[in-house]
Amino acid sequence: MSRPVPKIVRATVTPILISDPPLLNVLGVHQPYTPRCVVELETDTGVTGVGETYGDTGYLAAARSLAAAVTGRPLTALNGLLDLAYEAAGLTGDTPETGAEFDPAGLRGRRTNEKLMRSVVSAFEVASLDALGKTVDLPVHALLGGKVRDRVDYSGYLFYRWAEHPAADAPAAGLPHDDWGAALDPDGIVRQARRFADRYGFRSFKLKGGVFEPAQEIEAIRALAKAFPGHPLRLDPNGGWSVDTSVRVAEELGDLLEYMEDPTTGVDGMAAVHARTGALMATNMCVTTFGEIREAFARNAVQVVLSDHHYWGGLHATRELAAVCRVHDVALSMHSNTHLGISLAAMTHVAAVVPNLTYACDSHRPWQTEDVITEPHVFTGGALTVPDTPGLGVELDRDALAALHERWLRLPEFRDRDDVAAMRRADPSWSQPPLPRW
Amino acid sequence: MSRPVPKIVRATVTPILISDPPLLNVLGVHQPYTPRCVVELETDTGVTGVGETYGDTGYLAAARSLAAAVTGRPLTALNGLLDLAYEAAGLTGDTPETGAEFDPAGLRGRRTNEKLMRSVVSAFEVASLDALGKTVDLPVHALLGGKVRDRVDYSGYLFYRWAEHPAADAPAAGLPHDDWGAALDPDGIVRQARRFADRYGFRSFKLKGGVFEPAQEIEAIRALAKAFPGHPLRLDPNGGWSVDTSVRVAEELGDLLEYMEDPTTGVDGMAAVHARTGALMATNMCVTTFGEIREAFARNAVQVVLSDHHYWGGLHATRELAAVCRVHDVALSMHSNTHLGISLAAMTHVAAVVPNLTYACDSHRPWQTEDVITEPHVFTGGALTVPDTPGLGVELDRDALAALHERWLRLPEFRDRDDVAAMRRADPSWSQPPLPRW
Repeated sequence: MSRPVPKIVRATVTPILISDPPLLNVLGVHQPYTPRCVVELETDTGVTGVGETYGDTGYLAAARSLAAAVTGRPLTALNGLLDLAYEAAGLTGDTPETGAEFDPAGLRGRRTNEKLMRSVVSAFEVASLDALGKTVDLPVHALLGGKVRDRVDYSGYLFYRWAEHPAADAPAAGLPHDDWGAALDPDGIVRQARRFADRYGFRSFKLKGGVFEPAQEIEAIRALAKAFPGHPLRLDPNGGWSVDTSVRVAEELGDLLEYMEDPTTGVDGMAAVHARTGALMATNMCVTTFGEIREAFARNAVQVVLSDHHYWGGLHATRELAAVCRVHDVALSMHSNTHLGISLAAMTHVAAVVPNLTYACDSHRPWQTEDVITEPHVFTGGALTVPDTPGLGVELDRDALAALHERWLRLPEFRDRDDVAAMRRADPSWSQPPLPRW
Repeated sequence: MSRPVPKIVRATVTPILISDPPLLNVLGVHQPYTPRCVVELETDTGVTGVGETYGDTGYLAAARSLAAAVTGRPLTALNGLLDLAYEAAGLTGDTPETGAEFDPAGLRGRRTNEKLMRSVVSAFEVASLDALGKTVDLPVHALLGGKVRDRVDYSGYLFYRWAEHPAADAPAAGLPHDDWGAALDPDGIVRQARRFADRYGFRSFKLKGGVFEPAQEIEAIRALAKAFPGHPLRLDPNGGWSVDTSVRVAEELGDLLEYMEDPTTGVDGMAAVHARTGALMATNMCVTTFGEIREAFARNAVQVVLSDHHYWGGLHATRELAAVCRVHDVALSMHSNTHLGISLAAMTHVAAVVPNLTYACDSHRPWQTEDVITEPHVFTGGALTVPDTPGLGVELDRDALAALHERWLRLPEFRDRDDVAAMRRADPSWSQPPLPRW
């Protein structure tokens, strides 16, 4: 005799602000607090699942609309979530969210409603899979066809950074602080990498570039290569370079990089850099949704897609992206935005089921001193073990969630991430650099 | 507290022979009995799941190897099944199964180990999903992200046919017989369609062509269009025509066909017919596995892929194919080979979860008078309702299975389907027609 499919009876969307160090990138600097959004789905059988995604106000509004719309639906109705999200928000997929061709906050290429909606849907899909896994006593990876690896490798994500946030950012409650100190030159980057390697065992390293003149960033990669001979290295200036600059960096670094991440923007530029150098172009800007694949792949602008289950609309969608990449002999790695342990668990489950995700995944997680789960992940040997416990294998820490939500209520000035504005508070002359900057 | 993931403790492969009418195609005629293979997986928790695939001796051998290999594995380990199948059979994916560029039996394009292995894996994946669904009280569609439609449309599959199998085929036990009579001209095809429409409500019709000169088949389509105005029609000569003949048929039939199925063979030919006529080229010969997609899509040789979960390696793989097709603005319909109710259930579940499977699916099922499930499907309004019962929603009829297996033991001469040989028994002068025939 069969029991009915569980239904969603409550969907809760909780915006939070999480501490973030003063990490530098082409646009500016990370704010002291960055918004995220935690989605909880509760079923009529009393099971709860959790998901996490971007928390900026646009995402939050869409998440709240979708939360109202999913209530009463079967927990397993994942394939219809994107259409439901559009409908609930009164949007259509092909309208750009803004007229901007470049997202000043998220570094994710052209902003469209589809990208926003997919990011929101991802949290609901992950929460549904978490609840479904708990309901049927299966880990999320088993709901996706089963893991093909027991451990998922991550890369150490290196940033140029200041020791402290600018005093001008100081909210009444004080600013987050950590003991990593500044890293503003090759030595600082190597020290940072050494600490990551010692503490977490990362074997591959990614440097967020686009901060200093390319010559210094080239020196940083050379210093890393000398300190960690044979370890895979990546450099990501977020489209900060012209084609000629990208070509020069590629030529100077030669085999030291396993791939170049978004050295320049757009299909034309990426295709040109690859054609002129043979360097592998990886992206989380040029191709971040299905509609951008066809032209970019046809023109060989991208050889490695940095998948991101938030961008692509969930774990099933990431699996589908992987299938598209296999067809086109395009490789897969994984992008990370600032995130907490719920998303890290989701990333680990989906990375475990995709056979062609053979590069180490990126994660900002080591930079986050806070979490909303009771047992935050600890990287060992540069990897995480794929959980076999039901659902995602994480438990929500309600006290932590409440505290971070209270911060969101208290500090409205940080509810939209804006790295340009954050930099301007330190340097009033700063404005968003036109790309390419160099 | 979580229970362990169920393990497969027994995998049973049962070859059967099922009755088949004397249906005609470009190669010859269907044998009176055609091989299929039923896979049963039993878990350590006492749950059984079923799958069905091709039963020719090559498939059967691979299925038996895989059956031995899956024993002891987690029921949810689907993503590794293809690699396991290769390993168990001692094969690699890139070796052609035979040197033939055209499969004389299955009409599925170039034969490769990969295609054989994917077809075998599909039965194990479907059986696993059936058992998993029964274990966790969810229908298979819910394990694939949930249905996006409640009913799946099928097309009426029309064949030129004889009234009876040739007497030369008579085994000791006698030959299968039905009351459909012969259909060897346009009137016969319209009568057949009328009976299908009256009995099952099919609204779209597919005619298996390549049997008579194109002029007669054009007349048959015109007669159908007159008898069923506005109903979608398809014509499939299985690559029997040259490019020029295909162009002529396309021009003569104009808008009467919703798409042309494999009018000619190969990427060059399909691309040329489309370029010259604008007619949509559908295929289950030119593109039947992932490695064939890239060139065919780049050259616009195919506008509709006739998916088939057997060919593509299961239900997850069919979902992935659908994602690839969405990226390339290529549409999806569904191919059928002679099959029974287990596969029809699997087809219905996967068709229900693929949003872009908007054409009515093909199915040979109405021609099969036998089945191995206790409650064979009945088409109403040309469609099947997507089951919400656990697993596939079918129950194995063990008596029927035993009887059809007994036939397989008794009639070794039909263990490999060979439409050319079957025709030769009726007409000793018959040999495999070179393609294109016209």
